Amino acid sequence: MSGAAAATPADFPVLHPITTRWKDNDVYGHVNNVDYYSFFDTAINTSLIRDGGLDVERGPVLGVCAESRCRFLASVSFPATVRCGVRVARLGRSSVTYALALFGEDDRLLAEGGFVHVFVDRETRRPTPIPDGLRAALSALAA
Amino acid sequence: MSGAAAATPADFPVLHPITTRWKDNDVYGHVNNVDYYSFFDTAINTSLIRDGGLDVERGPVLGVCAESRCRFLASVSFPATVRCGVRVARLGRSSVTYALALFGEDDRLLAEGGFVHVFVDRETRRPTPIPDGLRAALSALAA
Amino acid sequence: MSGAAAATPADFPVLHPITTRWKDNDVYGHVNNVDYYSFFDTAINTSLIRDGGLDVERGPVLGVCAESRCRFLASVSFPATVRCGVRVARLGRSSVTYALALFGEDDRLLAEGGFVHVFVDRETRRPTPIPDGLRAALSALAA
Amino acid sequence: MSGAAAATPADFPVLHPITTRWKDNDVYGHVNNVDYYSFFDTAINTSLIRDGGLDVERGPVLGVCAESRCRFLASVSFPATVRCGVRVARLGRSSVTYALALFGEDDRLLAEGGFVHVFVDRETRRPTPIPDGLRAALSALAA
Repeated sequence: MSGAAAATPADFPVLHPITTRWKDNDVYGHVNNVDYYSFFDTAINTSLIRDGGLDVERGPVLGVCAESRCRFLASVSFPATVRCGVRVARLGRSSVTYALALFGEDDRLLAEGGFVHVFVDRETRRPTPIPDGLRAALSALAA
Repeated sequence: MSGAAAATPADFPVLHPITTRWKDNDVYGHVNNVDYYSFFDTAINTSLIRDGGLDVERGPVLGVCAESRCRFLASVSFPATVRCGVRVARLGRSSVTYALALFGEDDRLLAEGGFVHVFVDRETRRPTPIPDGLRAALSALAA
Repeated sequence: MSGAAAATPADFPVLHPITTRWKDNDVYGHVNNVDYYSFFDTAINTSLIRDGGLDVERGPVLGVCAESRCRFLASVSFPATVRCGVRVARLGRSSVTYALALFGEDDRLLAEGGFVHVFVDRETRRPTPIPDGLRAALSALAA
Repeated sequence: MSGAAAATPADFPVLHPITTRWKDNDVYGHVNNVDYYSFFDTAINTSLIRDGGLDVERGPVLGVCAESRCRFLASVSFPATVRCGVRVARLGRSSVTYALALFGEDDRLLAEGGFVHVFVDRETRRPTPIPDGLRAALSALAA
């Protein structure tokens, strides 16, 4: 995203509120970098489950993280509530690339990230085409 | 709490909403028992910071957990939002005992717990009387 | 355990080493109380999987935590390695009560705890007798 | 790292053993992607504290994560023990870029990652030159 303007909440079709936890703050008093990835994972899967009908217990496919990244721009501390924006940046046959951003309570940009899901067959764990229901939900997040 | 009627949201002076996370679900598809304690810790410290003026970075005292317990009554799964009730059950000179309960989205009781904080001096880490501001906030949670 | 002598490593038939993590330390610079429960859960399940043949993915039964508790006696900080002792204190038809203790690198007692597993059928999630293989492994931990 | 041969343990001047935990496994039965970042953070800070003399409680500087990334190559499940290799790929005036890799029990490559630390003054939280002791330790990891 180098060279691009900083992300704003309006850049994302969906924003998921996430309440921080006492344990998110590390020794330095701010939410630890690791937890940002948990926020990303949470925001993506909330969309997949609520809007895409992903059945994590019994569905025929599951999403496996192939790669992810994050740039950390500002710190935030518990007990703030943050919002995580999710947008589908690229939708392939069996994989999807998400653009993510984390915003503080005043819409301040805290972090920008990326995350690639490869959908695999539950039994063989081999890549498989994204089912229609999920694909429709992911397409709606590409807007 | 054996023998007592099951807790309801009305039994608690404050209820903190907590958004579950993808990682809270363990292999069995439900929020792991360990995370319930994180919810307790989060609810207690939210009250101490927001209403009691606890300064976790520089304040003269800090709360150390001396003991805790939980009875798990019903399961819950991400992406649910839960609410954690906090009540002060006993307020001593340097320690406080909290009664806690976790409720699902339909006010279903998920768990009941207890947690003892001992307040200690930041430097010596020895027990110290609870400062007035915190004591007032804790007293308000005893209602 | 009130009134009893403090636990020592020799009181436990098995001790599992656990490496602490950066994120275990909270704002106050010590491993957070919540993580102690993760250590308990980890030690118990390590024994069940390695010695009891528990198949967490496909086995017919799974262990659900019904209650747990911990008394925190001393603090510890990352990057220490700790050891978690597990002993079966009571072995019932479908439930088991574990006694746990956490030791620092010098065998210093950090915490004592308890944990009750109820074994349930994977499909119905109703209590079910502990299978023979698991029961044998749990019996060995009662020594 | 595109085009490069896959990393092996011999590519890293230090490898830190990390014991997985029950809670690392997510619903799909493998260590969750988020935890890989916790392993990276843990390995880096173990080196900084043990070999670089980083004083996380009172030292004049602290390391803030500016960006990180990970490619996930193979899954691993609790109760495995993994090893995290750390190498300094670039050592600047106030920042350091680490190359990281995670290996399974059979030295199988599980993931490759990158992580940038910016060292900041504890009070002002502004970038500051890396102190000599830390710089020497980081230089040793560049080998």
